[in-house]
Amino acid sequence: MKEFFNVTTIEAVLALRQTFGPVVSQSVSLEQALNRVLATDVAADRDIPGFDRATVDGYAVCAASTYGASEGAPAYLTVVGAVEMGHTPGGTVGPGQATRIATGGMLPAGADSVVMVEHTGVIDKGTIEVYRSVAPGQHVVTRDEDAAKGQLLLSAGIRLRPQELGMLAACGMKDVIVHQRPRVGIISSGDEVVPVTVDPAPGQVRDVNSHTLAALVRQGGGVPTCYGIVPDRFEDLLDMCRKALAHNDMVLVSGGSSVGTRDLTVEVLGALEQSRILVHGVSISPGKPTILAQCGAKPFWGLPGHVTSTMVVFMVLVRPFLSRLTGWINDAPVRVPARLTRNVASAQGRVDFVRVALRHQAGETWAEPILGASGLIRTMVAADGLIAIALNDEGLEQGAAVEVMLF
Amino acid sequence: MKEFFNVTTIEAVLALRQTFGPVVSQSVSLEQALNRVLATDVAADRDIPGFDRATVDGYAVCAASTYGASEGAPAYLTVVGAVEMGHTPGGTVGPGQATRIATGGMLPAGADSVVMVEHTGVIDKGTIEVYRSVAPGQHVVTRDEDAAKGQLLLSAGIRLRPQELGMLAACGMKDVIVHQRPRVGIISSGDEVVPVTVDPAPGQVRDVNSHTLAALVRQGGGVPTCYGIVPDRFEDLLDMCRKALAHNDMVLVSGGSSVGTRDLTVEVLGALEQSRILVHGVSISPGKPTILAQCGAKPFWGLPGHVTSTMVVFMVLVRPFLSRLTGWINDAPVRVPARLTRNVASAQGRVDFVRVALRHQAGETWAEPILGASGLIRTMVAADGLIAIALNDEGLEQGAAVEVMLF
Repeated sequence: MKEFFNVTTIEAVLALRQTFGPVVSQSVSLEQALNRVLATDVAADRDIPGFDRATVDGYAVCAASTYGASEGAPAYLTVVGAVEMGHTPGGTVGPGQATRIATGGMLPAGADSVVMVEHTGVIDKGTIEVYRSVAPGQHVVTRDEDAAKGQLLLSAGIRLRPQELGMLAACGMKDVIVHQRPRVGIISSGDEVVPVTVDPAPGQVRDVNSHTLAALVRQGGGVPTCYGIVPDRFEDLLDMCRKALAHNDMVLVSGGSSVGTRDLTVEVLGALEQSRILVHGVSISPGKPTILAQCGAKPFWGLPGHVTSTMVVFMVLVRPFLSRLTGWINDAPVRVPARLTRNVASAQGRVDFVRVALRHQAGETWAEPILGASGLIRTMVAADGLIAIALNDEGLEQGAAVEVMLF
Repeated sequence: MKEFFNVTTIEAVLALRQTFGPVVSQSVSLEQALNRVLATDVAADRDIPGFDRATVDGYAVCAASTYGASEGAPAYLTVVGAVEMGHTPGGTVGPGQATRIATGGMLPAGADSVVMVEHTGVIDKGTIEVYRSVAPGQHVVTRDEDAAKGQLLLSAGIRLRPQELGMLAACGMKDVIVHQRPRVGIISSGDEVVPVTVDPAPGQVRDVNSHTLAALVRQGGGVPTCYGIVPDRFEDLLDMCRKALAHNDMVLVSGGSSVGTRDLTVEVLGALEQSRILVHGVSISPGKPTILAQCGAKPFWGLPGHVTSTMVVFMVLVRPFLSRLTGWINDAPVRVPARLTRNVASAQGRVDFVRVALRHQAGETWAEPILGASGLIRTMVAADGLIAIALNDEGLEQGAAVEVMLF
C-alpha cells in the first residue's frame, strides 16, 4: 500500500497560525460593530454611572434613621422633597428626613441608602412611616460601581457581543476601532463542476462548495468573494489563484480530491510568487488531502472536493486561521457534552470527525452518528455538529461520553 | 407590603407567541440567505448526484472480477480505458476488465464498484493486478444517494446554515424564498437618559439600552431601527410609539423601571389604536416590570430600564417572539451543562436568572455566578450566559448541576 504524502497532525497545523497576523483595523459605528473584533483596549472615560443612583422606587434616607424599624415599631420620617429624574437634587437629607426618589434617580446629599416604597406607608403629606431598616449603601449603585474613570473595561481581541456594545455606549463611544473583516477568495476547481444555474449533464455536479464555503467564511467573520469554477488546467488555475491572492487576505481552492487535482493544486501553489507549502496532508478524516501554503503573508488552502470533507476541514482548521486574521483571541467553538447512541469505528493514526445529531431524551443529551459517504451534503444537513475520535482510538462504544462541536 | 401588578409566568407569556404570525416572505440570492428562515419546503429537482460516482481514485470494475483477490493471489484485470471527469464514459466494463477513474468520476456502464488505487499494481500498460476484493457498490455513491428527484430535502421554518445553502446549491436554487427579517422599532424613554455622544451631567446616564437592544435584535434575525430617547411625557411617548408601530413589525420601549414610567408606558399602550395589554408583570427576576401588548397584529414590549434586566427579558421572552416573527420553528438556545462554583440564593415565586461565567477546570465545566446589581452592564460583559433558578427553589448549592443558556 502506498502513502501519497506525509501527513501533519491537527495540532501542528494549528500551531502554524502564528505565521500569520491579524488584518489591519478600521473605525466603525456601534451599529456596525456587532461580532466585530476589538482592535484596541477600551478604558472608562468617566465614572459610570457617575453619581450614586437609586436601584428601587422609594425614599432616599440616612440609613441610621431607620435602624430598629419594624412593622410593629415603624420609624417616622419627614419628607423634605422629591428627586427629579436626570437632575441633581437640590436639598440635603438629614437624620429623620426622607426624599422621594424613583429607580435611577440621583441620591441627594446626606442620603446614603434608599428605603423601598413597599416598606413604607404615608401618614400625611409630610410624613411617612418605615417598616424595615436599611443598611448604608442599600438599594444604591455607587458613582463608580459599574466602572471607575480610566479602568480597563474591554481588551483588544474580544469579539463584540450586545453587552460589549452597551458598555461602549456607556463610555460614550459612538465609533469603535475594530479589525477589518478578512477578505477570503474562494475558487472551485474541477472539470466536472458546473454553476448552480446549469442543469448538469451526466458526469457533472453543481458547484456546492463555493456557496457552502462562502457561508462558512461569512459565519467566521470574513468577507467571501467567489471566483467561480476553474477547469483542471495549470495555467487557468494559476491565473485565478494569482488574481484571488492579489485581492484577498486568504484564499481557498476546493476540488482536489483526486490525486491528479491535488497534484495540480500543489504545482500551482509552488508556482505562485513567494509561496511555500507548509502542510501537504493532515491526519484527519474526512479531509486528509488538505494543503496549506504561505503566499507572502497570506494563508492559501487547498481543500478536498467533497463538500462534507471541506466543511470539516474548514471548521477544524481553516476557521481558527480565519479567527487569527480577524484578531479574535478566544475563538473556541461551543462544545456540548453528550453520549453516543451507537458504536462508531475509527482507524488509528488519524482524528476521525463524525457528524452527529443531538437528541434530548430523559434529561440526557445523546449524539446520534449520521452515516453516509463524505460526498453527501444531506449528512451535514441532518447533523448538529461533529465529534472527534482521537488519533489512537479504534472507535467509541455506545454510551461513551463525547463532546459535540456545534455547527 | 403592596403588590403592584399581577404577574404572569414565563410559560404563559411564551404561549402568547401564537397570537402573532411570521412576517411575509421574499426571494433572496443564496449569497444573502445565511441565517435566514426558509419560507417554503424544498424538494430535489433531480437525482443528486444524478449518476453513480466514484468516491476514491482507482479502477471501476465488476466486483465479481475481484472476488478472492489478495496480496498473495491477486486478480489480473485488463485496463480498457479511463473516465474523463465531467463526461459520460464511452465504453463498458465487462468481467475481467477495469477502467481508470478518479474521485468524483462517473462509473462506466457495466461497472458496479471501484478498487482503490492503493490496492492495485500496474503490470504493464494494459494490465493491473488487484490485491483486495471489493463488494458491489463499494467506493461508489449511487445516482440518488444524496437525494432522489422530488424528495423533500428542507422544510419551511428552518434557519439556513452553510450546509443548507450547499443543499440548495445542489438543487440548482440560485435564489430562495425566505421570511423577511422582522423590523423592530426601539425607543428609549426616561428624562435621565442622554445620547451616547453627550457628556452626561450629574443625574444623567447615556443611552445604553438602544444600542444593546439593537444588537440583540440583529443577532435574533431582525432589522432594528432606533427612534432615540423620548422624555417621560404622555404625548411625546404616544407619538413616538405610533410612529414606530407604523414602520415596524414589533416595538420595544425600554426605560420603565420606576412605577411612574411603567404607569406611563401602560397608559400609552392603552391609548394606542387596536391595543390590548396581554401581560403586565412577569414572574422573572430581573425583569419583573415587563409589559406585553398586542397592537393590531404586532407585539409591543415595555421593557425594564436597567440594561441587564432588559437583556435577560430579551433573551428569555422577546427573542422567542422575534423568532416567531422570523418564521423560525426550532429556536431553542444552546445550553451547556455545568456545576455551580458557589451557593446562590433565590426568592420563591419567580424564576431567577443569574449571570454566570464558564470556567473549564480538570475536565469539568463550572458556572461562576457574577455578582452585582442589575443596573451594572459590566456584569453582563463578565458573563458567558444565564442560569435559571426555578419558581419554587430557594436557591442552588455549590456543586449543583445547572444548564447555562449561552449568550
